[in-house]
Amino acid sequence: MKLNTNYDKLQNSYLFVEIANRLKKYTAANPSANIIKMGIGDVTRPLAPCVVEAGLKAMSEMGKAETFRGYSPDSQGYEFLRNAISAYYASFGVKVGAGEIHVSDGAKSDCGNIVDMFDTDNTVLIPDPVYPVYFDSNIMSGRKVVFCDATEENDFAPLPDDKTDCDIIYLCSPNNPTGSAYTFTQLKKWVDFANARGAVIIYDAAYEAFVTDSDVPRSIFAIDGARTCAIELCSFSKTAGFTGTRCGYTVVPNELCGGKLAKMWARRQSTKFNGTSYIQQRMAEAAYSAEGVKQNLENIHAYQKNAKLISDTLTEAGIYHTGGKNSPYIWLKCNGDSWDFFDKLLTQANVVGTPGSGFGKNGEGFFRLTAFNTYEKTQEAMQRMKKILG
Amino acid sequence: MKLNTNYDKLQNSYLFVEIANRLKKYTAANPSANIIKMGIGDVTRPLAPCVVEAGLKAMSEMGKAETFRGYSPDSQGYEFLRNAISAYYASFGVKVGAGEIHVSDGAKSDCGNIVDMFDTDNTVLIPDPVYPVYFDSNIMSGRKVVFCDATEENDFAPLPDDKTDCDIIYLCSPNNPTGSAYTFTQLKKWVDFANARGAVIIYDAAYEAFVTDSDVPRSIFAIDGARTCAIELCSFSKTAGFTGTRCGYTVVPNELCGGKLAKMWARRQSTKFNGTSYIQQRMAEAAYSAEGVKQNLENIHAYQKNAKLISDTLTEAGIYHTGGKNSPYIWLKCNGDSWDFFDKLLTQANVVGTPGSGFGKNGEGFFRLTAFNTYEKTQEAMQRMKKILG
Repeated sequence: MKLNTNYDKLQNSYLFVEIANRLKKYTAANPSANIIKMGIGDVTRPLAPCVVEAGLKAMSEMGKAETFRGYSPDSQGYEFLRNAISAYYASFGVKVGAGEIHVSDGAKSDCGNIVDMFDTDNTVLIPDPVYPVYFDSNIMSGRKVVFCDATEENDFAPLPDDKTDCDIIYLCSPNNPTGSAYTFTQLKKWVDFANARGAVIIYDAAYEAFVTDSDVPRSIFAIDGARTCAIELCSFSKTAGFTGTRCGYTVVPNELCGGKLAKMWARRQSTKFNGTSYIQQRMAEAAYSAEGVKQNLENIHAYQKNAKLISDTLTEAGIYHTGGKNSPYIWLKCNGDSWDFFDKLLTQANVVGTPGSGFGKNGEGFFRLTAFNTYEKTQEAMQRMKKILG
Repeated sequence: MKLNTNYDKLQNSYLFVEIANRLKKYTAANPSANIIKMGIGDVTRPLAPCVVEAGLKAMSEMGKAETFRGYSPDSQGYEFLRNAISAYYASFGVKVGAGEIHVSDGAKSDCGNIVDMFDTDNTVLIPDPVYPVYFDSNIMSGRKVVFCDATEENDFAPLPDDKTDCDIIYLCSPNNPTGSAYTFTQLKKWVDFANARGAVIIYDAAYEAFVTDSDVPRSIFAIDGARTCAIELCSFSKTAGFTGTRCGYTVVPNELCGGKLAKMWARRQSTKFNGTSYIQQRMAEAAYSAEGVKQNLENIHAYQKNAKLISDTLTEAGIYHTGGKNSPYIWLKCNGDSWDFFDKLLTQANVVGTPGSGFGKNGEGFFRLTAFNTYEKTQEAMQRMKKILG
């Protein structure tokens, strides 16, 4: 038996392990330190009341013979949820048919599995810095990867270069880790670039609920031409705090490869996946109800308030950064080695963030903070940071 | 962009679609027909009370800031569940370490995704008839597949043939669709065969909770030598009625490829999967508690009672069949075209089953019935079948 040797080409992912190790060492030596964590991109506020209510109801249904549900009739998701997602898109003016929506246990699964549909012999264009899954999932399946530089010069929102040869393009906007977000005009350039060369864009819209600027699209399907070149991945993780609950969805438009890609993805999912739990699908439906959207916006607004505070503090200190608006992430210039900055922040301010170098070569010299802590702790962290930044 | 052309080699899966179409047509013409469904392998009894209780508790925790859980600390599963699964194995005398257990959203996902770890250049041995995922997931990734004939001659429990060249072997015991189950002695032959040639067995133990015969193992790890050649897939679907709830697990022993496979699977899952919902993990933990096992056994016993009734009816009518014990499936010889038998059963007895030809060439002439209906309906179905069989 021969193993998939592409796995040998993967680099070990030491980023969060190394952060945990340094934190552990520091707190062991300084047990009274009041650490404020702004490192991992995980939500902290509880599920919205109407989501919990829907979950409790679904859970009770599963305990009674008359209302029990076994395998879902379609591994792409119950109609009630696909309709709710379609209506959610319509609420911000984007038309996506319920039949084009494929519900899953999370956007990370879809992001990892979507590569199944493409030949190994494709060149993949990935921005740097980047969410590591785009890169790793393609290395695992043996594809050639080229990078597109996101830097201070392009405000971490790189645009296509006509000289770049590529077949599959990953875009994430609002971006993880940089918080930058493409405008309609910028994203249109990518759509035109992809259509011109018959490339496919895999568009990660996980942070769309954080968009506030009117010139920033919440979906790639807000762009003319996207339906012939793009797949969109989205999630309830950041929109509705589902990081530990798990539910996401992928939109494959009917126009893509003459409908072939949508059929392939449906086939992939019905063969290698057995649908998302009925319970989570009811919770997700509630999250996109009028009441659910309202309740979830309270959480998003709380995170946005934190993000603005961090951004304002950095602006006041004259520090270049992206994100902080349209995003729960703030990507700041730390002038120098990003692990040195991590240590400085940890030891001098007792604040934990994420060194930019962990996201790619262009991340060196930068640092990510997240807005997922409480307002009080974010305030306290900013007070402490002011002292070492000023 | 080049698509994965292996998908073009897949046959469309018309089996359950065709069954639904024929059923629809018949009920449209005969609206008063009292149809009894014994076709699809889906549970019908509700979740056990203690599982629902654990689910309600976890759901409530997710609605409060103090007890809310985001991303799970390890995408392989919470320690509490991995420990509970390890203890479950120990309860029938099999030693599997908690660290060797990888929790997922279901065995079908694991079964589809496990192929990621192997080179395309491997020959895969699959029994015929077979659960279609084994075949399709390997066709999708371009591997050569050879078949191992399960027939009346070997009681649908084929043994290895030393002349067969293969690198990856799929076994399912108790089997879907045939209900046959390997004894310790038989399974040992497969383990020895795999170890002798450095092959890997992917062992699907989804139906282990139905095993009653003392000479039938519930896990491949009950066999000496299995730890150097086998991966085991298992699920809460049939054991605890989780088909619509979703939770499963895969065991990759530390001895396999010197520990390399366990590391690869952990890497695959942490890259392309984000862990199973906290809620389902708490429900699964409850399912394997002493009270949960007891409550779930009541459901299993109810299905087993149905299976025995079907098997006894067929024995009485002198009809060759496998399963009915150690399994919720009954695989019967229908003498002739299995779609003709489907039509006969539907129109003359108003009973729906599954034509064996849908599971492979050796399924022709056979037919699958499931024990997942109520006892009353199973009784009624057997009364009707007696008339057309006798």
